[in-house]
Amino acid sequence: MPQAQSEPKAESREPKAKRPLRVAILGFGTVGASVARILVERPELASRLQLTHVFNRGVTRKRADWVPSSVVWTDSFDDVLAAHPDVVVEVVGGVTPAHEWVSKAIEAGSSVVTANKMLLAAHGPELLKVAATRGVRLRFEAAVGGGVPLIHGVREGLAGDSLTGVAGILNGTCNYILSRMSATGEPMDIVLADAQRLGYAEADPTADVDGFDAAAKLVVLAGIAFHRHLRMPEVPRRSIRPLSAADFRYADRLGCTIRQVSRVQATDGGFFGSVGPALVPQGSSFGRNEGANNVVTIYGKYGGESSFSGAGAGGPATAVAVVSDLLALTQGGRQSEAEEWQPASFVAPPPLPYYLRFIVKDRPGILAAISTAMAKYDVNLDAVLQEPGYPKDRLPFVITVEPCEEAALHEALGELSDADWHADPPLALPRLMGQDS
Amino acid sequence: MPQAQSEPKAESREPKAKRPLRVAILGFGTVGASVARILVERPELASRLQLTHVFNRGVTRKRADWVPSSVVWTDSFDDVLAAHPDVVVEVVGGVTPAHEWVSKAIEAGSSVVTANKMLLAAHGPELLKVAATRGVRLRFEAAVGGGVPLIHGVREGLAGDSLTGVAGILNGTCNYILSRMSATGEPMDIVLADAQRLGYAEADPTADVDGFDAAAKLVVLAGIAFHRHLRMPEVPRRSIRPLSAADFRYADRLGCTIRQVSRVQATDGGFFGSVGPALVPQGSSFGRNEGANNVVTIYGKYGGESSFSGAGAGGPATAVAVVSDLLALTQGGRQSEAEEWQPASFVAPPPLPYYLRFIVKDRPGILAAISTAMAKYDVNLDAVLQEPGYPKDRLPFVITVEPCEEAALHEALGELSDADWHADPPLALPRLMGQDS
Repeated sequence: MPQAQSEPKAESREPKAKRPLRVAILGFGTVGASVARILVERPELASRLQLTHVFNRGVTRKRADWVPSSVVWTDSFDDVLAAHPDVVVEVVGGVTPAHEWVSKAIEAGSSVVTANKMLLAAHGPELLKVAATRGVRLRFEAAVGGGVPLIHGVREGLAGDSLTGVAGILNGTCNYILSRMSATGEPMDIVLADAQRLGYAEADPTADVDGFDAAAKLVVLAGIAFHRHLRMPEVPRRSIRPLSAADFRYADRLGCTIRQVSRVQATDGGFFGSVGPALVPQGSSFGRNEGANNVVTIYGKYGGESSFSGAGAGGPATAVAVVSDLLALTQGGRQSEAEEWQPASFVAPPPLPYYLRFIVKDRPGILAAISTAMAKYDVNLDAVLQEPGYPKDRLPFVITVEPCEEAALHEALGELSDADWHADPPLALPRLMGQDS
Repeated sequence: MPQAQSEPKAESREPKAKRPLRVAILGFGTVGASVARILVERPELASRLQLTHVFNRGVTRKRADWVPSSVVWTDSFDDVLAAHPDVVVEVVGGVTPAHEWVSKAIEAGSSVVTANKMLLAAHGPELLKVAATRGVRLRFEAAVGGGVPLIHGVREGLAGDSLTGVAGILNGTCNYILSRMSATGEPMDIVLADAQRLGYAEADPTADVDGFDAAAKLVVLAGIAFHRHLRMPEVPRRSIRPLSAADFRYADRLGCTIRQVSRVQATDGGFFGSVGPALVPQGSSFGRNEGANNVVTIYGKYGGESSFSGAGAGGPATAVAVVSDLLALTQGGRQSEAEEWQPASFVAPPPLPYYLRFIVKDRPGILAAISTAMAKYDVNLDAVLQEPGYPKDRLPFVITVEPCEEAALHEALGELSDADWHADPPLALPRLMGQDS
């Protein structure tokens, strides 16, 4: 390849002959162990990748007899650094101390493969820049979509397009919870407890149900798709916690179900997007996505829609993504400065239709009060739905509204916040009908 | 990247400084023109890709005023070769003379990006080998799945897995025809004529409806997924032509619809696979795939299933794939010998359940004759379906059979071939219920 050549840098360790890349794994949990297992079980990889170090806190209890005896087990990151591995695989997770370790590895001239979405969302731009400067590479297929080769697909497979949007179901835990609530009519607390028992949800489910995990993945996807860095605290985020069985019943009446949808769209003025529960048509790819699966649709100016789906998490699936990144590093090439993420911020989204669910202590005049507040902010009501069988003192009903500005809707709901007929705070969900579902 | 370096070869033109890759396009039809348009419309690509030549027979009538005046238009392939482009984009199609041009370009030290599935199915192994020898690259994202970044996804994104199977809807024309027959109940000839009028099908639809197009794509996918070359004439192939409106009615009674499915699976003994119409559940990803869209599922030992879907064809979508390949070439790297396709052949498929449709001149004893023939070859009948409303002298009815060897089934049907009650030859369709639909 004519363009492949670059002048050897004095500080990088360029081998003259073809030899396997020496790989150090930081973190020997489910993913780290699965990476090691693939490297051991696929002998055809031995000429390209050689596992040399496994780092873990209290490493002695981690040592596995199926790992070749040549591998050094250590609980000292400095030992790893001193061995100058060609690639450091970071599957520790969390921003601290992963950030320090990854930074030091890159500074020392090692490429890094990471599954760490939180690290990338917080420090991606800086790490990409340093990697380009140091002539090494930072790859992170495993950070989004587990075994779904989404990052490769967007970064390389769709590089020829001008991408305009990304929308997906990026959190398997939420999708497990919501698709099961949709199928069985069970309430959130029962399903969440089961998800925790089955290992689909953490003891503290905040990162999943409140959207932090999906928001970090969305930031990484936006980085890859648009080369822009949306700051994670600025991603509009809503929790799935307020959803009730009644919401699924009303959604069903509208031909819809509810999913946690993460989306970001590029416009001339900037980016808009969000993470949170939304109504999606039952027959859409999001509505049909069951269990812990991920599904992501990418929109391009030239190529239209492309969708990717598969297992979003799990040790072996995520390990496949890590090993794929390692193999990409053996192919050569360099980190392009064009891959860096420039700062960007969010603009207000365009008008969307909404689903508004109220739970009220029923009495005359409630609908009149709501209609008046909505009219004041130019929010047009579409339909009012009320299913039978609910108690008068906790009566859920739904109003759908025509496409309106999100800000106007919240102003209107704010007007009603003092009303004493609320049994629960109202819930507003966007209705994604077309290209975002 | 430590591994990126290779010794400069005397015969390859390695630039010392970073400059755009010089690109020559062979063929200025829909795809070629769309490639040129993306290069012109995306100024951020100018530092990486520079269109220098457009080759076409009778090129003067092709000349487009929106192409920069620096581009040389020529109808002489030797002119292109003499200019030593870094990359030749081959979007002419067909094996002859594309094979000669691509071979000469590679021999002369140019990388090649091609959308030509027929060329790859016939000569992929040889071209990949020569490219590796010459230190250039051969890329073909556009050859399968149009705008769906399938080749990237399989080759790079899933490289870390041991892939075990590929199944997909690879021909948009067949899918348009079959999904419309399924939706409207129209007969094949009406829908095919409409598809031709709308530009979805060629005047001679053989390549699409008889499965040649999908078989070539399946050969390319198998090359990428398994590094094996299945010879195209050996791909078991059945046409969709015998399908009638009655088949969709009977499929519906079984909760199924009919799609042209292409699949190949790796076993310890070899590969099995086929291209042709099959019953798939209505709710499956294949059954739900409408219009000219493509959808492909890849099965991996570690990562499970990953699916890709999107526009399978069209100038702009295919051009995106070509430009993505061009951008990949600017990243450097080299063709690995591990990407070469070794010869492989097909073995008999495992037992599958089948749908058998007979169209008969009705009389007593037909079912007895069929049952007897099936029993002789150990094919167990499952159910007999007969819908009302058909004439006695052309009565379609269906027998479903339990999983059986394909060879045994055809022996049994062969026993019946002399019977004088056939109004049409019987039709046997595999029923793909689980992982292949």
